[in-house]
Parts: sequence; structure tokens; C-alpha cells
Amino acid sequence: MKVAIAGAGAIGSRFGLMLSQGGVDVTLIDGWKEHINAIRENGLQANYNGKDVTVKLPVMLQAEVGRAEKFDLVVVFTKSMQLAQMLHDIQGVLGEQTKVLCLLNGLGHVETLEKYVQRDNIFLGNTMWTAGLTGPGKVKLFGSGSVELENVGDGKQDDAKQLAEFLSASGLNASYSDNILYSIYRKACVNGTMNCLTTLLDCNMGQFGATSTAHQIVVTIVKEFAAVAKVEKIDLDVDELIAHVESCYDPSISGHYPSMYQDLIQNKRKTEIDYINGAISRKGRKYGVPTPYCDLITEMIHAKEELLGAK
Amino acid sequence: MKVAIAGAGAIGSRFGLMLSQGGVDVTLIDGWKEHINAIRENGLQANYNGKDVTVKLPVMLQAEVGRAEKFDLVVVFTKSMQLAQMLHDIQGVLGEQTKVLCLLNGLGHVETLEKYVQRDNIFLGNTMWTAGLTGPGKVKLFGSGSVELENVGDGKQDDAKQLAEFLSASGLNASYSDNILYSIYRKACVNGTMNCLTTLLDCNMGQFGATSTAHQIVVTIVKEFAAVAKVEKIDLDVDELIAHVESCYDPSISGHYPSMYQDLIQNKRKTEIDYINGAISRKGRKYGVPTPYCDLITEMIHAKEELLGAK
Repeated sequence: MKVAIAGAGAIGSRFGLMLSQGGVDVTLIDGWKEHINAIRENGLQANYNGKDVTVKLPVMLQAEVGRAEKFDLVVVFTKSMQLAQMLHDIQGVLGEQTKVLCLLNGLGHVETLEKYVQRDNIFLGNTMWTAGLTGPGKVKLFGSGSVELENVGDGKQDDAKQLAEFLSASGLNASYSDNILYSIYRKACVNGTMNCLTTLLDCNMGQFGATSTAHQIVVTIVKEFAAVAKVEKIDLDVDELIAHVESCYDPSISGHYPSMYQDLIQNKRKTEIDYINGAISRKGRKYGVPTPYCDLITEMIHAKEELLGAK
Repeated sequence: MKVAIAGAGAIGSRFGLMLSQGGVDVTLIDGWKEHINAIRENGLQANYNGKDVTVKLPVMLQAEVGRAEKFDLVVVFTKSMQLAQMLHDIQGVLGEQTKVLCLLNGLGHVETLEKYVQRDNIFLGNTMWTAGLTGPGKVKLFGSGSVELENVGDGKQDDAKQLAEFLSASGLNASYSDNILYSIYRKACVNGTMNCLTTLLDCNMGQFGATSTAHQIVVTIVKEFAAVAKVEKIDLDVDELIAHVESCYDPSISGHYPSMYQDLIQNKRKTEIDYINGAISRKGRKYGVPTPYCDLITEMIHAKEELLGAK
């Protein structure tokens, strides 16, 4: 099985490293030249659960992928807004049989994937694995995680189960889900509250949770997600989801600044808001479901991106 | 005519100074001890259109007002959230005949005034005069302005007109309005957009106006104000109001940081949000009119107040 990781940032590098250590022929593809060059010259250098590990892996710069040999499996791990460009750049190595597994955070990626990949070959999932990029070619990997995935094409359950087994053989702890969209919405509710609110209010999750208005804001946003999901026949358990979101205030993780905060406030990078609250706004407009909190949050995050000159 | 200015901050001090220079017996009442002591010792020291002016005025600390001689007119000029406490503290000098003129920004003050003053004696207005406090007992006054006011009690138009004439005799450029609530809502639309959005996004008015989402946010908020005003039989001209709000992006004033920004971001003080967007939220709930943008903005400003430890 010839595998590519398309988008080899922190979490993509983790998957590449673990698959490689599991004996899989895996290639890293990314658009960041310094990162690719560093891995090409020195290997992927990881602090892996406290130990220093260096792994030699084939790498390709996204813009130079061309029409090489087809891969059997491509795991896409770009930022949401980079997915379309990545698929465009690597279409030369996507064959008739190439399966594409999308583990991106956020909503609305299947629409993008379908422009480049036939539905039967698309698999959607999410992951609880984490990772940090500490410099070009360098990652910090600690803790454990899991993957859930499901087929998008009708009747492709067996392929999805085999894919989960294949990932698990390298320790990625993957399992088949018969309701992956529920899991994706559930995770999106966390991102659609903690990410944008800590970013707009310039605080960590625990600080936000300690404010007197946090609960009301979370409740209203989760209800908007649920109203949109309902139109897609996904029946979110609002009370459970609110409790799930508010578990972010647990002292063990409450000091965390979510990825959107890191992207925009710390690194002046554009955010994934259009694939989280912005996706709910777009779906809401399409379905005739009001989503005003998501609308205003999306507008304010875009304003903040522009004010900070985010790129 | 014995006049008190209840709330002698920057703008209250301006009114006190101008009335005093117009020959009126005027007393300043305020809760800030250093300010009152400084005026008592050194007089009110003003940079008045570029000239240094010192005016000796009677002053009273709000908490020590007691049951002195009644005033004929009290002009209240507190921060919105301090109005109730001020009225409580000065009730001993509010007689049967004492007129109270409220020139505070924001909405919902009549409800507070009515707890201490009979309706026939309440006058509502707004002012375009500006002023800055530069230290205890020191103000900077420049530019010109005006006052519009109206009676709250039925059939008290003549009293309102006399009150306007009285203020104008000291150069305050006051006039009677037959629709003061329209003017108050119109000003509240500016405060309900520029104040909170520059505060939440940490920018000045021009920077906010230059973002791609500013217009949509302004339109949605102004429509919420209009929907609430409509229930009160005030028919706001939405297009004119949006243009009025967006005139804040004019280069002559676009560099300004609104008072809420100054209060919260620069000085870590609590804001007047409950009397601007928060008033629209409360009225909306009461009238069954959805006001989600005002709801979320109010919740976020309160969260920000708590995060910054505002007092």
C-alpha cells in the first residue's frame, strides 16, 4: 500500500511517522518549502513521547507533484482553506483506485473533495491525535489518540473498515463509525465555540469559561449547529454537546489556547472560520435556518483577520 | 434658578462651566472624591477653546448631599449605570418642583428616573457637546455643540421650551424637539455599532470601517434597533441611519476610539453596554423581537469586562 500524507504539518507528520514506523511506504507532500527541504536533508525529526526519533521519508513539494506513480491512499491533512489547492496540485497522483481519507477539522469538505475524487473513493473521519510543529522538519508528538472514519460512497462500509484496520496496524487506533457526521459536528461544536470566542476575547478556554456570559453564548451557538444538522438528518444531543464543549474548562486543559487563537492572534494567519461557524452560516442560509451568532462571529473573525493583516 | 449638575465628569463640567459663566447659580455633584476636592480647592480648571480658565463653583460629594435646599433644575450627567445610585443619593435635594433633565447617552433611562422623579418633571434630551477630563478638577473643552430636549410628561411642552431657552442663554445652543426619542435612537445606533465593535476588535472607527464585513454587521445591528423602536412607535429610517453610522469612517474622525473603547480597553472600566445594545436586547425580549446581534455583543462585552477585571 503506497500512501501519501497531503498536508504534512504537525498532525500530518505524526501520521507519516507512525505509518512509516509501521512499515508502510509513505510519502509526505506539503506546500511549505523550508519544511520539505528540512525533511529531505535531515529526515523528519520528532520528539516522540519524550524520545528523539529521526525518520527518513520521501517528500514532495506540493507544487512539484506532477504526474508521478499513483498512490493507493492519500490522507489529506491541510488547513481547511488549503484543501482545494492541495487537491488541484496532486490530482496527477490520484488514480481511479486511489482512496482519499479526509481527517480535517470542520464542515463542508466533501463538497470540495467531490470535485477531484469520485464519491466511492472518499472517506471521511476525524482524529483525536494531537501534534505540534516546532520548526521546519521538527515535530513534538506526545499522548495518545484515535481515529474514526466512515465511507462517503454508498455500500463502501467494508472498504472503510479495511482502511481503519490498516491504520490501526500502525498504532493509529482507528475504528469504523456508522455516523461520522455526528462525530464531526460534535467536534465542530467545540471548535465553533472555543476557537472563535477565545480568539475574539483574547483569552484561554478556562478564562472564557469563567465569565458570566460564557454559558449563554455556548448554548446559543450549539443550538444553531443543531438546527442546521437537523436539516441534514443528524440529530445532535444539545445537552450532551453543551456539556462536551464545557468540559474544555476542566483545569487539565483549560489553559489551552485553541488553534484559531494560535493561528490568528499569535501567528497572524488566516483562520478556518469559513469551515466552522462560517459553514453553519452558509448551510443556514441554504436551508432557511437562522444562525445569527455564527453569522456575526464569522464576520468578526474576518474583520479581525483583516485588522491584523493575516495571511 | 438654582441648578445642579449631577455627575460632573467631562461633559457635566462643561455644562457647569458654561452655565456658571452665563450667570447661573450652579453646583457640581459627583462621586469622585479627588475630583470634588480638587475643584473645591483650586476651582474647576478648564482649557476652554485653547484658553486657560478657572471657575469657582460650589461642589458636593454625592454621598454627602443629604437634605440641603432643593434645586430648581438638576441636569444628570452620570455614566448610565451610575444613574440610579446618583438619584438615590441626591433625592434629598429633589423637591416637588425640581425639574430633572437627563442628557445621558443610551436607552432605558426614563424607567430609572421615574423611580425618583414624577413624570411631569422629567425632561429627556441629548447633546452633541463634547469634553475631556484631563485629571481631577481639570477639563479640556473645545469645539461647539448643541442640545435637543423634550418633555416626558404629557402637556409639558412649554416647560421643555423654557428649559431649552434657559440653557441657550448660557450658550448651550439648546432647542426643543418634538421627537427626542428618534434622536436618542439615532445616536444609540452609532454607539451600538462603533462603541462595541471597536472595543471587541481592538481598533478605531476607520480601521473597523475598512474591513470587508463592517457594512453587513452595521446593517444587521441597525435593523435590530429599528425593529425594537418600531414597537415603541418610532419609525427609524434604516438607510439614513446606516449612512449616519458609516459617516464615522470619514477621515476627519475615523481615527477616534469611542468612549467604550476608552473605558474598557484603555482604562479597564465597566462599559455602558447594558444601556445600548443591552437595552435593545431587553426590549427585544419584552416585545418578542429577535435581537441576536445585540444579544451576542452584550454577552461578549460583559465577558471582556470580566476578563479585564473592569471596575
